[in-house]
Amino acid sequence: MTGEFCIGIDLGGTNLRIALLDAKYKIEDRESLSTRRFKNRRSLIAAIGKSVDNILARNRLKTKNILGVGIGLPGQVDFVRGIVHSLTNIRGWREVNLKRILQTKLRLPVFLDNDVKLMTLAEYTLGAARGAQNAVCLTLGTGVGGGIILEGRLYRGCSNAAGEIGHLPLNENGHRCNCGGFACLETYIGNNTILKKARKIFKEDISLEEVSRRARFRDHKAIEFWSDVGLHLGNALTGVVNILNPDVIVIGGGVANAGKVLFGQVKKVLSGRAMRVQASNVKIMPAKLGNDAGLIGAAIMVKAGVENR
Amino acid sequence: MTGEFCIGIDLGGTNLRIALLDAKYKIEDRESLSTRRFKNRRSLIAAIGKSVDNILARNRLKTKNILGVGIGLPGQVDFVRGIVHSLTNIRGWREVNLKRILQTKLRLPVFLDNDVKLMTLAEYTLGAARGAQNAVCLTLGTGVGGGIILEGRLYRGCSNAAGEIGHLPLNENGHRCNCGGFACLETYIGNNTILKKARKIFKEDISLEEVSRRARFRDHKAIEFWSDVGLHLGNALTGVVNILNPDVIVIGGGVANAGKVLFGQVKKVLSGRAMRVQASNVKIMPAKLGNDAGLIGAAIMVKAGVENR
Repeated sequence: MTGEFCIGIDLGGTNLRIALLDAKYKIEDRESLSTRRFKNRRSLIAAIGKSVDNILARNRLKTKNILGVGIGLPGQVDFVRGIVHSLTNIRGWREVNLKRILQTKLRLPVFLDNDVKLMTLAEYTLGAARGAQNAVCLTLGTGVGGGIILEGRLYRGCSNAAGEIGHLPLNENGHRCNCGGFACLETYIGNNTILKKARKIFKEDISLEEVSRRARFRDHKAIEFWSDVGLHLGNALTGVVNILNPDVIVIGGGVANAGKVLFGQVKKVLSGRAMRVQASNVKIMPAKLGNDAGLIGAAIMVKAGVENR
Repeated sequence: MTGEFCIGIDLGGTNLRIALLDAKYKIEDRESLSTRRFKNRRSLIAAIGKSVDNILARNRLKTKNILGVGIGLPGQVDFVRGIVHSLTNIRGWREVNLKRILQTKLRLPVFLDNDVKLMTLAEYTLGAARGAQNAVCLTLGTGVGGGIILEGRLYRGCSNAAGEIGHLPLNENGHRCNCGGFACLETYIGNNTILKKARKIFKEDISLEEVSRRARFRDHKAIEFWSDVGLHLGNALTGVVNILNPDVIVIGGGVANAGKVLFGQVKKVLSGRAMRVQASNVKIMPAKLGNDAGLIGAAIMVKAGVENR
């Protein structure tokens, strides 16, 4: 029974999550730590080591039962060489050869990639984009991330930086974006922007979850709020659909919980604005795997990586 | 010497061009007819047959010396089934099984595709995008066409409609586009739009070639004119670069002759607005193969198609 299991790790700005997955990508055990409790890179890496040890001991597994370790990171990553270029919202991670460090520490094969790319892989293999040829996945959160599956394979681009749908410009002029550009989709529908807007509209310290809840109860202002988010998103996806002609677009992340109103508006914009052939061939779907998509995608990456060696 | 040559055909709104290409895609002979002289589809197809016969006779070739016939068409085409869905600027071509009609007529294998896709294939195989992994090709004319090579293969999308970079929206509001959408790149830099603008600026019946000539001679207004075209183009390519992370973008078509000013402005916009990793890894190049790219791409398609059968 050598290497039946994988370790999946999802490093987020809020939580560091470590899981044990079986051969069918079922999560058998997990630990979750607060990312902010780590003062530096070194202590975070040490905690990963300890969590992996805990999980192995708890499940009476040895290193030889583990195929490998997969890590999803919120930032720019060199998938091939296993180097973290930089992370969004986590300091002290410039040009870190995390693959080498962890392989030495854990004595297991280590693979790493951008977290949204892994979510995309998971939704394509087991989730909402299953069976698609060409799929685009989006996560709506503080940042707006994207991943692309083309002809059945994760598309990385020439420097593993492809898929940044959050940084598709919506207008020729607009607000500065964290990426260095301006008027990017993220500046219109990133959580920080829309939360500010919601508080202005509702004149209270409202959460986005609450706006979603009110929309479900047909609150007029809440519906208008999410329609507006959907309008911007639909405008961005018009470009994506015209250029990539995908069969499915998967939308995940907290904001996607706004549900019907948001998805309805996106579909309406696409059918009114995108080219006929492309618009009539694309399905817009909510993500299926929720918060675990990153952990599952990490395990899928490990399996593919080990098989390709 | 069975099948050493290919017949390449490029059907445009202005000209119907038929050529004989050798195994290295060198054009050995050609005929050119005015597209407008044909009253209907039937007479145009008959003329193709006659031209192919002429070329074979002139070069003392028999059908058995020809590998196949490749046709590029300005419109939406079903590459797999060989059906023309519709053509831009040429009437009477709705849902025509051109592959079947021509195969019966010519007794040769026939392949057809969108003309910009074939230009892309040619620039990738023999032209400016040679050696690239991921390339985007654009043609600037009355329409703004696009083709995409990903991981060394022409990317078609789920209904062979991918690559419509001319229909990437530049703003959330703007002029109606022929595609049914609005504010598409084509509405900003399509020849008809910019020609009107040029005539307004120069207050004379000027041609785009003349504006290009004046820009080369450092005419201030002409430089500003092309800078403005380059600004819109650069804004659209910012989205393309952030999403596709290509190693090269090839720009062809008449307007591309504006040269230095246009290319300089596109590069400037990308370095100021696109994401750092993507912007620093992409080259912006003028197309190399000129008007013959479509004929060459048609022959490349034939070779690939015959080999894959």
